[in-house]
Amino acid sequence: LDSHRRSGTAKLLALLRDNGPLPMAELGDHLSMSRSQVGQRVVAMEGQGLVTRGGRAPSRGGRPSSIVALSPDLHYLGVDIGATSIAVAITNGYLDVVEFAEEEADVRNGPELILGRAMQLAGKLTAEHPGVRPIGIGIGVPGPVSFRDGHPVAPPLMPGWDAYPVRDVLFQRLGIPVTVDNDVNIMALGEMQKGVANGASNFLFVKVGTGIGCGIVVRGAIHRGANGCAGDIGHIRVGNSTTLCHCGRAGCLEADFGGEALAREAMAAARSGASPLLAEWLRQNGTLSAADVGRASAAGDRTCNGLIRNGGQLVGQVLAGLVNFFNPSMVIVGGGLANLGHLLLAEIRSVTINRSTPLATSELSIVVSELGNQAGVVGAALMASDRFLSQADVAGDGPRTAGSI
Amino acid sequence: LDSHRRSGTAKLLALLRDNGPLPMAELGDHLSMSRSQVGQRVVAMEGQGLVTRGGRAPSRGGRPSSIVALSPDLHYLGVDIGATSIAVAITNGYLDVVEFAEEEADVRNGPELILGRAMQLAGKLTAEHPGVRPIGIGIGVPGPVSFRDGHPVAPPLMPGWDAYPVRDVLFQRLGIPVTVDNDVNIMALGEMQKGVANGASNFLFVKVGTGIGCGIVVRGAIHRGANGCAGDIGHIRVGNSTTLCHCGRAGCLEADFGGEALAREAMAAARSGASPLLAEWLRQNGTLSAADVGRASAAGDRTCNGLIRNGGQLVGQVLAGLVNFFNPSMVIVGGGLANLGHLLLAEIRSVTINRSTPLATSELSIVVSELGNQAGVVGAALMASDRFLSQADVAGDGPRTAGSI
Repeated sequence: LDSHRRSGTAKLLALLRDNGPLPMAELGDHLSMSRSQVGQRVVAMEGQGLVTRGGRAPSRGGRPSSIVALSPDLHYLGVDIGATSIAVAITNGYLDVVEFAEEEADVRNGPELILGRAMQLAGKLTAEHPGVRPIGIGIGVPGPVSFRDGHPVAPPLMPGWDAYPVRDVLFQRLGIPVTVDNDVNIMALGEMQKGVANGASNFLFVKVGTGIGCGIVVRGAIHRGANGCAGDIGHIRVGNSTTLCHCGRAGCLEADFGGEALAREAMAAARSGASPLLAEWLRQNGTLSAADVGRASAAGDRTCNGLIRNGGQLVGQVLAGLVNFFNPSMVIVGGGLANLGHLLLAEIRSVTINRSTPLATSELSIVVSELGNQAGVVGAALMASDRFLSQADVAGDGPRTAGSI
Repeated sequence: LDSHRRSGTAKLLALLRDNGPLPMAELGDHLSMSRSQVGQRVVAMEGQGLVTRGGRAPSRGGRPSSIVALSPDLHYLGVDIGATSIAVAITNGYLDVVEFAEEEADVRNGPELILGRAMQLAGKLTAEHPGVRPIGIGIGVPGPVSFRDGHPVAPPLMPGWDAYPVRDVLFQRLGIPVTVDNDVNIMALGEMQKGVANGASNFLFVKVGTGIGCGIVVRGAIHRGANGCAGDIGHIRVGNSTTLCHCGRAGCLEADFGGEALAREAMAAARSGASPLLAEWLRQNGTLSAADVGRASAAGDRTCNGLIRNGGQLVGQVLAGLVNFFNPSMVIVGGGLANLGHLLLAEIRSVTINRSTPLATSELSIVVSELGNQAGVVGAALMASDRFLSQADVAGDGPRTAGSI
């Protein structure tokens, strides 16, 4: 009986989270519960600080029905550690972003420093909302993760992070449940919950950032693979390239495209004189980034247009194979380089569709991330919420909240 | 209540199917039911001809417990239509193959003729067991399938089959439930139920036959994709090949390897004199097949060894990308060309492991199909059984069986 009641509470919380506030009378329809069962449950949940009742909705005949909403005190913390950035958000119970902050950071500085900075950032955000005490935290990191153990596994770009107990360290610090996953997986989750993939259940999220990775959603849930490294498409060999990759092999997609590769090629184009504009910027700033290639491309620089087009072709070649294999309904392109401009997406689309079978692309959408740099934190908050719901318990005194962060 | 009882019956039938006969006392432990609940259920199911009680197993204290088994009258029909073959099996309720027959056939002869021959073959098998009346049929065909609608969708190698109502035609003929899927998907299911993938839940089955395809299992179920064509890896472009494929594009894996490509290359090697052995066999028999390449390879023919090694490299290049992407625990190689010899698997293994990330291959097995040419029919029978269990109903008079086939 207890587990039955518990799952009813979780279902009701998920229903409100995913649909917004609902009239009491409708809750029963969604959950196949009688009106009195719903009433008892809602009263118990109100006592725990999980929901509130208010307003009045016209009911089908009978008395007007009060509207049940998630408590305004429910909050989650979403953290997205990228290779070169830290993003943190506080969301409400509906996973709407209430506060968001992002900073540049180098993940290679190691877990103590990076997690410390993430917690500082979170502390600043909560300080602006004195009443806010998150009840769970989700965090994504840019490498393979053992979801079960809550730590990175042999991440190639994250020295010092291998098997570092991210979950346990944050739990000791905050005292609330912590869920850890790969950064691309949480971006895919974010787009499914609040972005362009809402309603989709079999799709891919391709992140083109410093490196290149892919979140895989099958039947509405992340596919993590046997070792937690599913979606590691940056090391698929593409074309005839012999560029040496940081992984030690040659010809990986990530060795020829992505933020790191593009910055390297921008420097080369500036030094060789192929791009006078980049050469000018290099003189001014002493260095060049992938974003400079995007700006130069927008200014009509042919060399930079060529670099972006070439990168789009490489991504498209890999994606074409994955579309034949996986037959997704949607491919979302996100990550920092998704901002390089229309040229990149146009090239990815063209090559992917050209090289896949007509049936596999007959209903395929290839689109840019809707949530942009917030996709990860929203997905991280969703993980935290799923974790909280899986343990929601009517017998308790309400959720445990974080102390001061 | 009714749906609750129904699902209990289905669970009990699945438990027996997947574990074999069990003492009554153990059934309750597996299903979290009391001894008396199990007893009532078993009596009802015995009355419907679904199970039998017999023997005596020592019980923990108390009375000896009778052993519950599936009724020996439960049978399924599994049909595997390949590009160049028809295989049919009758299985018992445990999905053990009771009778099996296989014939050469050309799927391009169209659905009426091919399905007619499959039913003739099934009729012969049942005629040898007068008591056998299958209660469900599963059938696989070598092309994309709308699983929901029970018919092929734009299959490239099957003229006349596009949208042909395979399910409805067979149901009209046999009067028992029919389930239709892609042939590679049923092979994957067969290996999961009775073969080398038993216990695995995230794996790939790569069929190298006339064409090349892949069955994808995620969390224990087939991933079919948005259009039912997931796993269509034969049209992934590989290397720099410019060989024109029957699909109209150039460089597809299937254009350079597979039964069709290998037979073509065998003819070329015979005519050019590159393989004196093949030239001799061509003179004797007037034609050459992929199997001849395997035989010549076994006899030490260098040209044929080269053809097989080259094919294994192409398959390995595609698989390496899929292993990075999907991170399976196992890759099974099956289909007619899996019999070409150790050289093919060795080459596939070597290239796949060499080109994937170390983490993705750290626990990966790459193995040959255990069930061989029976993988498909066993998987087809499993689909039929799953369909039957999903509709098992204690209120009925037992399953409807096929009339004379």
